[in-house]
Amino acid sequence: MTDPKLTEGTDPKTGSVPEDALAAVEKERDEYLDSLQRLKAEFDNFRKRTARESAAQSARAGEALVKELLPVLDDLERALVAAEEHEEAKLEEGVRLVHRALADVLARAGLAEIETDGAFDPHVHEALLAQPVEGVEPGSVVEVIQKGYRLGDRVLRPARVVVAE
Amino acid sequence: MTDPKLTEGTDPKTGSVPEDALAAVEKERDEYLDSLQRLKAEFDNFRKRTARESAAQSARAGEALVKELLPVLDDLERALVAAEEHEEAKLEEGVRLVHRALADVLARAGLAEIETDGAFDPHVHEALLAQPVEGVEPGSVVEVIQKGYRLGDRVLRPARVVVAE
Repeated sequence: MTDPKLTEGTDPKTGSVPEDALAAVEKERDEYLDSLQRLKAEFDNFRKRTARESAAQSARAGEALVKELLPVLDDLERALVAAEEHEEAKLEEGVRLVHRALADVLARAGLAEIETDGAFDPHVHEALLAQPVEGVEPGSVVEVIQKGYRLGDRVLRPARVVVAE
Repeated sequence: MTDPKLTEGTDPKTGSVPEDALAAVEKERDEYLDSLQRLKAEFDNFRKRTARESAAQSARAGEALVKELLPVLDDLERALVAAEEHEEAKLEEGVRLVHRALADVLARAGLAEIETDGAFDPHVHEALLAQPVEGVEPGSVVEVIQKGYRLGDRVLRPARVVVAE
């Protein structure tokens, strides 16, 4: 596409254009080429950097959680010592402590228990058994065999339940 | 910068160049501009995609570990029931089970205990106390107060130790 402004001075007899019109187009061409080369280099660097950061970021996400679990592991080892020494009261207290600590770490990570008090919901429940239960509306959850959990929006594990039919 | 090949035909009297020389430069300019615009669009899309993927990736890294911890939480809840019912043998066995399960999950995530059988190493040990110990070479670790852990190359927590002086 020829810019009409730049070819205004064309001599219709000779098919020639002023030299400065050519110089102006060449300047534009060179500027675009320069921008193109800079952008290519920038894109290359960006690609390399994100690849490096992506690996580091995955490692960090796991690392934060592992670090939070160290005190849980410590408490558990203390409970283990109490178990070996048959100190029942200490062992019981230890298990309660460990459970609370682990549940807290997981709750901070976004874990939440799936509700089971109501109608069976195939999106979050898995029916292991359906049986008639007197006085209970069909389709209700009557027993939880294994708790279910979600992490944010995602179901990590459905609740395994018995359903009234 | 003017390409000498394209200005070969310049008329020295009028300072004019052939029209086809101008057209050739304009074609180059337009091609560079087109490439530049395409690359900009591609770069923009890449930037947006990596930002989305990066958030999703962090979530997934944490999610895999949380999912592996669900059976540990289950075992712990069974141990808790045994504790409430004062079934000591079951409780002890439960605590051992939970400990093994948690230690396995963490080992798979890359967690390793920091060695403490040897000389004090300030990179991985923290000296809580230094005391003379008969028959022990100064600078040796003589007792571990709290275990230390590394995750891959990184020290998550130094081992807290007593050092002979």
